[in-house]
This record gives sequence, C-alpha cells and structure tokens, in this order.
Amino acid sequence: MSSDRQDKDFCLAELARTSGEWLRGDGPESDIVISSRVRLARNVAGFPFITRAAADVRFQIVQQVQAALKSEILGRPVHHVNVETLTSLDSQLLMERQLISRELARGDGPRAVAISEGERHSVMINEEDHLRIQVLHSGFALDDCWQECDALDNQIEATVPFAFHPQLGYLTACPTNVGTGIRVSVMVHLPALRVTREIQKVHQAAQKINLAVRGLYGEGSQAMGDFYQISNQMTLGKSETDLIAEVQEVVSHIIGWERKVRDLLLRDNKSQLHDQVARAFGTLTSARSISSEETMLLLSSLRMGIRLGLVSNLDVAAVNELFIHTQPAHLQKLHGAELETADRNVARANFLRKRLGSSSLG
Amino acid sequence: MSSDRQDKDFCLAELARTSGEWLRGDGPESDIVISSRVRLARNVAGFPFITRAAADVRFQIVQQVQAALKSEILGRPVHHVNVETLTSLDSQLLMERQLISRELARGDGPRAVAISEGERHSVMINEEDHLRIQVLHSGFALDDCWQECDALDNQIEATVPFAFHPQLGYLTACPTNVGTGIRVSVMVHLPALRVTREIQKVHQAAQKINLAVRGLYGEGSQAMGDFYQISNQMTLGKSETDLIAEVQEVVSHIIGWERKVRDLLLRDNKSQLHDQVARAFGTLTSARSISSEETMLLLSSLRMGIRLGLVSNLDVAAVNELFIHTQPAHLQKLHGAELETADRNVARANFLRKRLGSSSLG
Repeated sequence: MSSDRQDKDFCLAELARTSGEWLRGDGPESDIVISSRVRLARNVAGFPFITRAAADVRFQIVQQVQAALKSEILGRPVHHVNVETLTSLDSQLLMERQLISRELARGDGPRAVAISEGERHSVMINEEDHLRIQVLHSGFALDDCWQECDALDNQIEATVPFAFHPQLGYLTACPTNVGTGIRVSVMVHLPALRVTREIQKVHQAAQKINLAVRGLYGEGSQAMGDFYQISNQMTLGKSETDLIAEVQEVVSHIIGWERKVRDLLLRDNKSQLHDQVARAFGTLTSARSISSEETMLLLSSLRMGIRLGLVSNLDVAAVNELFIHTQPAHLQKLHGAELETADRNVARANFLRKRLGSSSLG
Repeated sequence: MSSDRQDKDFCLAELARTSGEWLRGDGPESDIVISSRVRLARNVAGFPFITRAAADVRFQIVQQVQAALKSEILGRPVHHVNVETLTSLDSQLLMERQLISRELARGDGPRAVAISEGERHSVMINEEDHLRIQVLHSGFALDDCWQECDALDNQIEATVPFAFHPQLGYLTACPTNVGTGIRVSVMVHLPALRVTREIQKVHQAAQKINLAVRGLYGEGSQAMGDFYQISNQMTLGKSETDLIAEVQEVVSHIIGWERKVRDLLLRDNKSQLHDQVARAFGTLTSARSISSEETMLLLSSLRMGIRLGLVSNLDVAAVNELFIHTQPAHLQKLHGAELETADRNVARANFLRKRLGSSSLG
C-alpha cells in the first residue's frame, strides 16, 4: 500500500476523543444489549489464502479492495488505515474500538482497514481471510446489520471477484467459516445474571446450540464488567437469515431472563442494589488510581443503576463511552504519550472523576 | 439507690447528639493519640468486696459514694445515672461513650455511675471494685489525667474511707490491681504501622515490658479501625508517677515510630495513600448500607488523610465523633427506636452521608 493511500485526514488521536455510533446506547433493548454485529469472511478469487500469500500478493489484495471502497462505503465517507505501519499503540486503539481484530493488529505484511465515518462499517484487509466485512449497530439490531453487511458485500463484489464454490459456498481460510462466512454476534450486559450466578446456565444453554459466549474483546478474552458476546459458531448448511434468526431467538430469551432477574432483585434486594450502585459511583468519582478491570466492574454496576433510575445526570451512552475511553490505548492517546500501568491507573482515575464530576446519585 | 437520686435532667438521648471533651481531637500529639486515661480502683473500708456483697450492702456503697459526689466533681456539675435500671440500649450507649465498662453494664444489683459535665470524669460504683475513678483527656495528656484523678480520689476520700493496707497499698477485688490500683491507658491511632505490618512488633515490644495492647473497647475487644489502647498491667511495687512515666516512654516511642512510617509512606507511596483516603471518602459518602467494622476502617483512613492534608472541610474532632456516633447504641438512640442489624447499617450510612456531605477531597 503506497503511503498516499493512507488517509491523511483521519487522525487516530481524534478517535480517542470521539466514539462510534454503536456506543450511543440506543436501539432496541439497549437496557441490556450494547451492540449487534454481523461480519462476513471473504477471499478474493485467484489469490492464495493469506497463510500462503507472499508480501507482494498481499499488497495487490489491499490495493484491489481499497479501490473498491475508494470513495465511499454505502454512501458514507471512508477512511483507509494502513495497519502495517501503525504503532502498536494505534493498532491497540483500533482494537479497543472494535474496528480491527487482535489478529489483524498483531499480523505482519501488507494489511489495512477501511472504516466508514461513524464507525458503523469496517473492512479488514488481510486478516485471517482477505476480507472481513463488519457492520456494527447500537442495540439489538441484527437485521439492520445484516442488510447493510449484505449491501456492503455487494458493493465490493461489484469490482472484486470472491472465491465461491457452488456446493460449499464462500471459501475461507479456516473451514469453520466456509459456507456463508457469516459471524453474527450480540454484546449483552448481564449484571443481574452474573450476581445471581445464573450466567452459568446461559453458558450451558448457548453451548448446547453451538453458540459461543465470550468476553468484550472476542476469542479467548475473559468477560469483564458483566459484558458477554454471544455469537454463532456454525456457518455452513444454513442461510444467513436462518443463522441470524437462531441467534436472535437465543438472545431474546437471555434478554427476558436478565430483565426478569433485575426485576426480582429490585423487588427483593432494592436497598442492596442501591448500595452497590452508590458504592460504585463513590469509588469511580473518588479513586486516585484504578485498574481497567475494576473500572469495568464498577461501570457495569453504574450502567445498571442508570437503567434502574438510581443515578441522575448520566446517560447510558456516556457510560458505554467510558468503557471504551478508559481502555489502555485510549488513555494513552488522550494523554499524548505512552504510560506505564501505574501511571495509566492514575490517568484512568483522573479521567473518570472528570467525566463523572457533574453526575450524582439519585 | 432511690429513684429521686437519679438525675432527672441528664437525658441519655442527649448524649447521642453530643460528644465528650476527650473526642475534641486536640491536646498533645493528637495526630496519633486520640485520648489518655487514668483510672483508679478503690474499695470502701468496712464493706466486703463486690462478689461477697449482698444487694443491701451494694446499695449502701452507692449511697455513700454518691453522697461524696453529690454536688460536684472537681467543681463541675455532676450527673448520677442508676445503671441497675437502665435499658440495655442505654447502658450500651454509656459503654460506647467510654463512660462505663462492659462489666458494669452487664453486672447486676445496685450500681451506678457519676459523670461530670463534659464527660472528663466518671466514677463507676460497684463495678469489679466499689469504685472505679476515671479521668479521660483528649490527646497525649497522662500527667493532666493523673493530677485530676488524684484530686478526685482525694475529694471522695475526704468523706469515704478507702480500704488500704500499709504494706500492700490500696486493696482491690482482683490481686492484679492491688497497690496503686492504677490503670493508665492511651488510645493511639496507628494506620501506618498496621498497613506496613509493623504493628506486630508493637505488640511484641509492649508485651516484653508488661504493657497490654487492646482494641477500642478494652479487654477482649479486637482492634478496629487501627485504634489500639496501650495500658499498664502491673500496679504494685512502683509509684503512680513511675508507672505513668513507663507508659509515657513507650507510647512516645510508638508515636515517633508511627510518624516516621507515615512520612515514609508519604514519600514513597503518596499516590497510593491518597488513593486509599479518597476511596474511603468516596465509600463513606456514597454507601447506602455499611457495617460498623467497615466504617471504623474507612474513618481510620479518613482521619489519617486529614492529618496528611488530603481532605478539606473536615476536622479530626468530627471524625473522632463519627467513630462514636456510628456505634450501634448511638445510632439507635438518635433514631429513637431499636433497629435490627440491617436497618442499623442503613441508618449508619445515612448518618455518614449527612455528616460528611459538606466535606470534599483536597
């Protein structure tokens, strides 16, 4: 990728001060669902899979895909980021933002990501597959995600031929993605199910029907702050809409379950719940040093507290944003320099006190 | 004791709203020393010790001692409280106030306490001995305590003959008090020595020279919130002033030690210390339910924070008062009714939020 391809106007430091549309905390069921995502795995016909592609081949792939997205993504302005030349801090920033995967961040050779304004769409180039096409929405909105992802897939396919087999469907580097190449995932906030330990049953139920339950940052990541990603694992033998319907059904069930347990807690343990939310608020607005893990847990309580009407002058969008803006790379970009863990913990605490300063307990 | 002896004007409910002079947080070394106390054990000549005294004898003892203190204690107005007829809540209140011992509260038969205005002096009647004469000062002021205790002892002895043996000295129910009958104790606040685990060495050093290290509420009580009572155990073979000098020397050493460790912590762990104080403040001003133990620990951090200049609009006297006013009986008297543990925890949290509402972190 030539350096003039890099979008000069897209300043990564700006990202640390703004937030993606998917964090707005609106959309259906947003008391429990943070965001919905549909991702398609695609490969360009006529090129070997990434593991067998030399640097020059990978470079051609980047060029071909970027050309297809050069002027816009579904009518929105597009930013092209050359991931190969990013500092590790910048690629971590994009990861925290859910715009690129750990695999793309830590990979090597020519690779890139195209991001639409508002961060709803992103296309990773030369991740595990040549293309990973992603659409991210706030709230429980898988149908919208799918429609846009399908349209974006068509936009690219208009100029880039995809590897497709009449029987198998779309061909992918890993056999688990063959067929539709689709991964559907929903990020849910389940504090009540965690506190009552029913979250174990969610894991078991999901496993039984081949859904994965993971943490905020995908494969291998621990669930932090009561956030869980629920996604399909099968991609073959069913249509995209059937796979989406399956995830929708399970997630709807989990939403109802979490809501019921919240109501029960509110009925039987209101003062305890109020105490938990109040203490979380007290610590977040007082601490002089705080880890990322503790922040996530306390923000989780605060987010539930807002939904239960226990906190004033604070909306869910602000808390969603804090989850992302208190991540290590975001803090360091805001600060304008790399920070050791201890200094990050101090910077995080300062940031939280400033942001939450005008809020109060209801 | 006839009911007309009971001081009609001394309302115990009032006690829950006020505080004793010894909580003012002033006096020498008051960054570390809460209060100093001298207590003398005395028995009235011609009467058997308490364990062998029938109710009518005990009644006579109460009458004789109250007569000696009828109008004043060292020139101050005096309040006579009939402990025999107190509710358990009221005797707990006096215990929390350090005005009577657990033994007097839980004893049986005629027994009383005489308290001077300001709570600096108190004379328990029919505790383990016929009289326990106590003087309590704010800060490190054992000499003042001793002088007043000696004067009060003389005031009573002017009309009440004490059991005294030319070789043994003052006779007491328990042989460990024979001789001077003196118990000298200093309540110290040692958060830095606790956090660095050097408090173990304080225990060992004190034991070696026969000093006891106990919690806030005397014998058998756990140290809570980093408060320790250091007192002599021997009363025989040395003069009162020698015994006091011994305790003074050891406590002076401990004060210097605590201060040094605080300075070191402030030099090497300032941000950690600041964080601890800030979190304590955050929890105390936010929680909706809080136990007595947690309150003591957090107030301990806050008290140190004030001394280190990390908290504004709050003085040590207010924190000292909170230690006492958040105790169970005080809370219940303020509330005007008995409360179960869970309700007490809610009442305690409400009380703390109200009291600390106008303070802020520096």
